[in-house]
Parts: sequence; C-alpha cells; structure tokens
Amino acid sequence: MFLARVYVTLKPAVNDPQGLTVMGGLHSLGYDAVSDVRIGKYLEIRLDAGDQETAEQAVAGMCDQLLANPVIEDFRFTLEQV
Amino acid sequence: MFLARVYVTLKPAVNDPQGLTVMGGLHSLGYDAVSDVRIGKYLEIRLDAGDQETAEQAVAGMCDQLLANPVIEDFRFTLEQV
Repeated sequence: MFLARVYVTLKPAVNDPQGLTVMGGLHSLGYDAVSDVRIGKYLEIRLDAGDQETAEQAVAGMCDQLLANPVIEDFRFTLEQV
Repeated sequence: MFLARVYVTLKPAVNDPQGLTVMGGLHSLGYDAVSDVRIGKYLEIRLDAGDQETAEQAVAGMCDQLLANPVIEDFRFTLEQV
C-alpha cells in the first residue's frame, strides 16, 4: 500500500483571486507583513501497487487525467510505502 | 522574507464527500487500486518577519484565526527563508 501526497498549484502566471481574498482577510486581521498568498490543493491518495515505479506511473496518470488542469495548474507528488 | 507552506487537512473522523467523489472518478478512469482519497488545502504565504520564531508565531496565528476551521480541520506548516 502506498500513500501519495499530491500538491496541485496554480502556474505562476495565473491569477489567484482566492489567494488575494485570503490575503485581504489576513491584512484585516492585522497580519500586514503578508505580501503574497497562493492557494492550491493537497490530496492524500492511498493505493495498492506492486512497486514504487508502478505507483508513480499511476499517480502521474491520475494527475494528468483528473486531478490537475494542465492548462493552469502544475502538480507534484511524493510517495511513501505505508 | 519567509515562505510558509501551509497544509490544511480534514480531521480523520470527518467525512470527506469531495474525496469520495474524486475516488469515484478515479475508479471510473480505471484506477481501481485507489482505496482512499482525502482532499485538503495547500497555501503558500510570503511574509516579512525579523526571525524564524516571529514568522512561526504569525503563521500559527493566521491558521488559528482564518485559514483552518479548528472544529473539523488540522493544519501544519513549514517555513523557509527566501
């Protein structure tokens, strides 16, 4: 059994209105030292696989096909045997 | 300038309908080896702070006050000087 931790982030050139809103909220709370907020997704996926390489290929495929939008998002992941 | 990477996850006992939906999608795509999907948030926050300890306290305060819902969510973060 493998645990994949997947991080999906907006590409640097893409606007992040959700992040801007959160930054505004932080400023309102007095956290004026904050100069940038970017918001992404974090997924924990448990899957069975014979070996690390098979698991890696499966998770990369999932990201390409469903979890990340390749037009505006990047992804990266780590794998851990559990 | 510090870069905080914040991970906000649902507590283990909390239902994750979004994760179940994504797992259903992955099964539909043929990824039958997936047995669990949990979805959280990932934030990258840039902030100015005099030292690591001040930055840590600020980010912990932001999580407590705005970024995570303490009733149903846990958070953790890492700090890096950039």
